[in-house]
Amino acid sequence: MGEQVIIFDTTLRDGEQSPGISLDQGEKLEIAEQLARLGVDVIEAGFPVASQGDFESVEAIAKVVRGPVICGLSRTALADVDRCWEAVQHAERQRIHVFIATSETHMKHKLRMTKDQVKAEAKAAVTRAKSYTDDVEFSPEDASRSDFEFMCEVLRVAVEAGATTLNIPDTVGFGVPEEYAKRLLDVRAAVPGDYVISTHCHDDLGMAVANTLAAVKSGARQVEVAMNGIGERAGNAALEEVVMALKTREDYFGGLQTNVVAEELARTSRMVSRLTGYPVQYNKAVVGRNAFAHEAGIHQHGVLAERTTYEIMDPAAVGQVESKIVLGKHSGRHAFADTLEKMGMHIQGDALNQAFTRFKELADRKVEITEADLEAIVAEELGTSLQNAFELESIVFRGGSVGAATSEVVLVSPDGVKVEATAEGDGMIDAACNAISEAAGVTGSLVDFKVSSVTGGVDALGDVVIQMESEGTRVSGRGVSTDVVEASARAWLNAVNRMVRVQARGEVRDLETGP
Amino acid sequence: MGEQVIIFDTTLRDGEQSPGISLDQGEKLEIAEQLARLGVDVIEAGFPVASQGDFESVEAIAKVVRGPVICGLSRTALADVDRCWEAVQHAERQRIHVFIATSETHMKHKLRMTKDQVKAEAKAAVTRAKSYTDDVEFSPEDASRSDFEFMCEVLRVAVEAGATTLNIPDTVGFGVPEEYAKRLLDVRAAVPGDYVISTHCHDDLGMAVANTLAAVKSGARQVEVAMNGIGERAGNAALEEVVMALKTREDYFGGLQTNVVAEELARTSRMVSRLTGYPVQYNKAVVGRNAFAHEAGIHQHGVLAERTTYEIMDPAAVGQVESKIVLGKHSGRHAFADTLEKMGMHIQGDALNQAFTRFKELADRKVEITEADLEAIVAEELGTSLQNAFELESIVFRGGSVGAATSEVVLVSPDGVKVEATAEGDGMIDAACNAISEAAGVTGSLVDFKVSSVTGGVDALGDVVIQMESEGTRVSGRGVSTDVVEASARAWLNAVNRMVRVQARGEVRDLETGP
Repeated sequence: MGEQVIIFDTTLRDGEQSPGISLDQGEKLEIAEQLARLGVDVIEAGFPVASQGDFESVEAIAKVVRGPVICGLSRTALADVDRCWEAVQHAERQRIHVFIATSETHMKHKLRMTKDQVKAEAKAAVTRAKSYTDDVEFSPEDASRSDFEFMCEVLRVAVEAGATTLNIPDTVGFGVPEEYAKRLLDVRAAVPGDYVISTHCHDDLGMAVANTLAAVKSGARQVEVAMNGIGERAGNAALEEVVMALKTREDYFGGLQTNVVAEELARTSRMVSRLTGYPVQYNKAVVGRNAFAHEAGIHQHGVLAERTTYEIMDPAAVGQVESKIVLGKHSGRHAFADTLEKMGMHIQGDALNQAFTRFKELADRKVEITEADLEAIVAEELGTSLQNAFELESIVFRGGSVGAATSEVVLVSPDGVKVEATAEGDGMIDAACNAISEAAGVTGSLVDFKVSSVTGGVDALGDVVIQMESEGTRVSGRGVSTDVVEASARAWLNAVNRMVRVQARGEVRDLETGP
Repeated sequence: MGEQVIIFDTTLRDGEQSPGISLDQGEKLEIAEQLARLGVDVIEAGFPVASQGDFESVEAIAKVVRGPVICGLSRTALADVDRCWEAVQHAERQRIHVFIATSETHMKHKLRMTKDQVKAEAKAAVTRAKSYTDDVEFSPEDASRSDFEFMCEVLRVAVEAGATTLNIPDTVGFGVPEEYAKRLLDVRAAVPGDYVISTHCHDDLGMAVANTLAAVKSGARQVEVAMNGIGERAGNAALEEVVMALKTREDYFGGLQTNVVAEELARTSRMVSRLTGYPVQYNKAVVGRNAFAHEAGIHQHGVLAERTTYEIMDPAAVGQVESKIVLGKHSGRHAFADTLEKMGMHIQGDALNQAFTRFKELADRKVEITEADLEAIVAEELGTSLQNAFELESIVFRGGSVGAATSEVVLVSPDGVKVEATAEGDGMIDAACNAISEAAGVTGSLVDFKVSSVTGGVDALGDVVIQMESEGTRVSGRGVSTDVVEASARAWLNAVNRMVRVQARGEVRDLETGP
């Protein structure tokens, strides 16, 4: 057996910082639980100082999720480090990840600090983090564009102060495999001490995965990756690609092992896509719907009698299997809850009640309910795990190529007060959104709209994700129904409810991007 | 100035072979014209022997598109080579691309040929191709898993018979940069002669771009790439990533040049996405909508006063600019046609008339018409450049959370005969599709459904792409409207019309996958 590569997942930190993603606590917990099932070694759960919401999510994950190390990101300000520890302290095993930029352009334009100041900051922050936990990671941000000598000075200071992992981020996605791998080898030679070298690669030039793997080949033993490759700009190295490349090319990578349960990859990918509202492109490696599909021709020729002719991975090995039928019209409450539990989805209380109601409505319209359908319903209800300002009582639409589209809606608040509105619009979805906005007294503009079908077939569920913007705040909403217009109305209402919560909290996220 | 790298675009061949993509001739021509504007050196226009439709598309592109070399793919059977020449002969400059597999598994399970047979086939086919044109490319399929010595024997035969380009495909996406680059260097050492070495990398392990670039660094001077990285399974190396990596890291790649006009990348990407129905993921490098976007926080902090802090490419340099407002409610027919012409879109006759009608309808509902809106309308009308069996006369929908959804539709055939139907459904879109199917007498099942908004705002156009399957044949349909239900009905009707044409031709594509 070869050595172990530590899988450090940053889906909930770098991934969640992508524009328009706004996961709430319930959703982050659900993803973190799934990442634990997937077998990642470290979960970077967030950036606690960024906002109260971020802090609470990291804290909740630290309290609940068992298995992986729970890590929080922190700038070098000591108050940031303290706040980070406050959030992660409840974990089984905790890590604090301190970062500060070391490139000329970042020091000059972003930090406005001298080299000496940067060194002093790194030393103080790592020392403080070390006073809380033995497991401290340090990142020189924009490492790939930093002066090598100076960066190594900062890294030596960090190691002396107690850092046990040195992460060398290619923050701007500038690296090329050979060059990035060499840089990590050079760090190893220039910085004495007992530490793990880690990669963090962005995909701006399409080489994040190759850069990560080249570094691993040269001795890096931690990789920072995100499911579906999400993250700032073009995103991070995709977890699923790095893991499957190590497995498939074990011969080349010297038998390196990971703890990832590859069969959970497809489900983790679906969950992250659905909760973030970020679609996975069809031809995405490993988890895309076509990753193992061929145009019909060659099947007809029977050349795939031997699977290995065109496939180097087995779809089943990454969990790409037909969604199983698990429930039907006559399934009761217990069967429903049991099935969710078996699928590893933990929802309780009101969210469970509402999900069950939605399931029964759906079962009236659709004979066979698959795992994928349940995932979609639960994903929608997770967004309502917090108290909603409004629930949908009823909605009606009329439209067509003749005359304006109209919609009538009745909403009800938790104390049972009903509000109604009728509105016209450019199309029925617009009419429905207008009616909901009017009834709720919350206006916002639609900045993105995306529908995908959960399974095939005419009675497939439509899964709608929208993004609404109001006074500079952007929230997403999700709705599921066999009717796309109804799904859209539900998504809009979901966003309205989130907007009410966000505005009530009066909160703006205050953050830098991180490595 | 450094040496030139030949950009060989296979969007219309390997890309178009992706499951569910079924471009018709008008759409392929439109993409080919755009590829010429983008400045690619070679367009692999298709696989002429695969079907009559493929043949005609390659022929049309060879007759019309000027600038790039027009290439056709061919198996080694002499009749295939002849047919390929028949299609490409009309081009300004032609290329025939001959391939045959050289790996054990492919020879045994797919070709059922001995090594000697494979060599003889390669020789005969290249010789025949050379009798038609000087520009002959040869690919040993599944090169990365082939016995190196045997593969070189075949390559020597091909060069002796006149091949001028040797393409070394990583057909199964198995390669790692260092290893793939070394293989190409070894080929150069083992195969004497004057030829260009070419890459063709699949992305199954997420390393297609890095493999391509590592090979270029080692001397490959042609890269086979596809827009948006589409292609078999996880797709090919993405054209935009390879080109921008060469440009951005000119320092590393020794100043290599391409003829690509990078400012056309974004538009080419949108066109390919829209016509294929393949979404581009938000975090896709270079052409994704977030490729240059940051979470709001850092903008608020003004750290982007210096753009280079986080961006290594300028969005404008790849054509990622705000869609300009180009037309309004009072724009006339000439202004409309002129604007399309300026945007480089050539549509004429009935398609132009219909696009203008749709534009006027849209201008009644939407004040400002942008370039992106026009692209969407034209994309829909391209699908109707051939004679349609049915046009939409009118459609009405009713639905909501109470009672079944219903739709009434009136279709009209070219000879003026009207057919009507009313249907119920699980949701209004389902009802509308049922009504259209009933009126047209064409049934099919919905296998995929995707909506995207063309621009932001509540009055944004919804761009719907669906895939319909009937008796093993899969076609796509596209519809655009400010109302998503109407857009869906239009998309369904578009697919019904295509299905009628395909079934009338009684055609099944007969192909292998190619390199």
